[in-house]
This record gives sequence, C-alpha cells and structure tokens, in this order.
Amino acid sequence: MNVLILHAHPEPQSFSSALYLEAKKFFEQKGDTVQVSDLYAMNFNPVASTSDFNERANPDYFNYALEQRKSLKADTIADDIKDEIAKVEAADLLIFNFPMYWFSMPAILKGWIDRVFVSGKFYGGTRIYAKGGMTGKKALVSITTGGRKDMLSSSGIHGDINDILKPLLQGSLGYVGMEVFEPFHAFHVPYISAEARAELLEKWRSELANLDERKKMDMPDLSKFDEYFHPIT
Amino acid sequence: MNVLILHAHPEPQSFSSALYLEAKKFFEQKGDTVQVSDLYAMNFNPVASTSDFNERANPDYFNYALEQRKSLKADTIADDIKDEIAKVEAADLLIFNFPMYWFSMPAILKGWIDRVFVSGKFYGGTRIYAKGGMTGKKALVSITTGGRKDMLSSSGIHGDINDILKPLLQGSLGYVGMEVFEPFHAFHVPYISAEARAELLEKWRSELANLDERKKMDMPDLSKFDEYFHPIT
Repeated sequence: MNVLILHAHPEPQSFSSALYLEAKKFFEQKGDTVQVSDLYAMNFNPVASTSDFNERANPDYFNYALEQRKSLKADTIADDIKDEIAKVEAADLLIFNFPMYWFSMPAILKGWIDRVFVSGKFYGGTRIYAKGGMTGKKALVSITTGGRKDMLSSSGIHGDINDILKPLLQGSLGYVGMEVFEPFHAFHVPYISAEARAELLEKWRSELANLDERKKMDMPDLSKFDEYFHPIT
Repeated sequence: MNVLILHAHPEPQSFSSALYLEAKKFFEQKGDTVQVSDLYAMNFNPVASTSDFNERANPDYFNYALEQRKSLKADTIADDIKDEIAKVEAADLLIFNFPMYWFSMPAILKGWIDRVFVSGKFYGGTRIYAKGGMTGKKALVSITTGGRKDMLSSSGIHGDINDILKPLLQGSLGYVGMEVFEPFHAFHVPYISAEARAELLEKWRSELANLDERKKMDMPDLSKFDEYFHPIT
C-alpha cells in the first residue's frame, strides 16, 4: 500500500505532530510505502494565484479552474503543485492530520487543497462524488481539538464535529471520489494528562491497524440525481 | 457607520470583485467610513506561524493561542496582524466577500481569520458566542458559487449552503460574538448572462440598503449551558 500523510501543525513537539509521526512509523513498520507532506516544514504556499501557472491560457481574465485544466494538459502548472499531485496519484490512502482552527483546517492545509485538487483531474463538469477523479483512493482525517467531545457533539454547544468538518469530508475528499473513513478525533488535547495522551496514541495505532473494518462516511448518492444534478423524484 | 470589507478574489474583473466594489461604493456614497482588506492585492500572508511574534513567550514550545495572548499584552505581534486587528476594532459592520473554494473560503481568507482573530481579544476561555470579544459588531457574508441554488439547498446534492458555511458563520463570526446576517448568495455566476449578473448586483445594492431588516443567523444560546458548557437539563 502507498500512504500519503498530510500534516499541518507548526510545532513538531505537539500532540498533532505525535499523531503524524506515529502514523508514519506504523505504516513503515508494516512495510507500506509512506510519503509525507509536512506542510509547515515544507513552507508550503497555500495561496491559489496567477503564479501557479508558468503560462496563462487567458492572460486577460483569470479563471483559476480553467487555468488548472489547460495547464495540466500543457504541463505548465507550478512545480510544487505538480509534485503534490504526483504524491496523491501514487497514494492508495491519504491521511489528513491537523489541529482544528476555527472549525476547519489551518489555512496552509486548506490552500493545499485549493491548489492541488486541480480541475480536470480531481473533478470536472459532472465528474464528482462517485464519478470523481480520485475514486479508488481512501482518506482518513485525524484532528486534534481544544474543545471537549461533548461540546462537539450533536447536543453540545458547537454541534457535531463531523457536520462541522463537512467542507473537508464531503466537499473536498468525497467530492473528488475518495472513500472517506470516519475521522479520528483527539479532543481537548491541550488540557489532558500525559497518560491520557499516551492512551490516545495507542488508540490511534490500534485504529490504524483496523482500517479495513472502519466505517465510511455517507456521500451523496448520484443515482438519486439526474445528469444535471436535479433530484429524481 | 464604519464598514470593513474583506475581499478574496484573484481576478479584479470577476463578479466577486464587482460585488466588493459595489459594496464599497454603496457605503461611501451613504457617507459611511469604508476600510478594505483586498487580500490578494495586499499579498496577505495567511499562514499562522512563529514569525507572527516578534518575541516568543515560550521559545521551546509553540502554542499559537498562548503566544497570541502574550504578544497582545506585550505588543509584540506582527505588524500586518496588528493593522488588521485595528481595522476590525474600528468596524461596526464587516463584510466577507469571496468565491466558494471547496465548500469554504479561499485559503488567503481562512488564514486571515487564523491570524487576526487573536485569542485574548476576540475570544478566550469561556468568552465565546454572546460573551465573545466582538459583540456589538455585525457581519455579512457574500459568496459566489459555481453550483446552482438547488444544488446547494437542503434537498440538493451538496446540502444547504448555510450549513456548509457553518465554520465561518457560527464557528468564526458568531464564535467571537458578532451578530451574523443571513448571507448573500450569488449562485452559478460563471454560467449566467451579463443581464443576470446586473440583476444580482442590483439585488446586492438593494439588500445592502435594507440591512436593518435583514434576518440574523441563530447562534448557540449560552443560557442553555452551564459555565463549563455542559447542557443544562
């Protein structure tokens, strides 16, 4: 198996970084091929812009998705994006590991998606969800939070964490056709003991060892919509 | 009134940029003070990192929120963040204007929130939602999408757009105490006619002129939770 781990935490000693390193070690020991994109270590540029294209298909009006499609064909997309696309294409499993920032990913990871999930390859026209460009790949999100589990549940003050993560789980990973596992949540990590952290790391290892049985998230069912995505009634 | 417009589109001729310029003109003609943060034009850095602090409270372990709190007091936060905080503090109304990228904001705007909504001023400990640091301010999101309205509704393939925007509407703007208006949605903009765009711009102007009557989003009700955010039953 080929595993790609995306990691987005600025402190290498953080618990989020421990989850990243543990996953890397786990798959390497299992004999899998592991690629990593440690975005802070790479100083990754997360801003989708005109400089992502060595040549512009339309120099007078900048449409990001159109430039992505044309630059893919012309092989004129920026090298850092090309490198990340190649990592995704080689991967059977992608792990997105990050701390929750404002009910979402840190911008450095959000921008990795903005720039790397290129139109024409990851999706295009009506090729989304089960018809997306990245079918056959699996994705697992592991997230650390400051809030407690009960605060991030359906009866809690903020609501269910998986609803909060919909833009990533459904709107990005599911959208391009990946099968999306139930996320791994590490709640309240700035406030828990070293023992509790060690238990969470052990839980993480054990869940990685049992991915085959892990539940997957429901995605929109294309058979319920026509070719223009109108509901079939 | 003092208005701050956040804008995040890389093409100045885009419809999103037209919405931004129209809002700017509208409030200026009304006699309001208008500040703008045109993030692409500013080449804004969206990555929360150690370089956001001219001095580190803890040079051995980087906790972003703790460094924010201490650097605010010590006045050692990076100048670009300080400038943006001052703009927010002066504003009565904030407008967040952007195209939907992956069910969310472009990374350049997500990172503006990551870096500018500093702990200790915007929120802190249990000072969130109605007790957040930015109570008394109002926020309005205006978003352009490629998808049609029916695709981004509760019975549509992607689900309701305001649920999709929860990380921004509730998890960021509501979280720090702002009153959050129902967003302005401009659907399907890459595919509509010049006439339809002109009508949307007119609708935008008219809705800006009637903000006083505009519906606000529901936020979690702190009276239903105890001081530790456990539900009161």
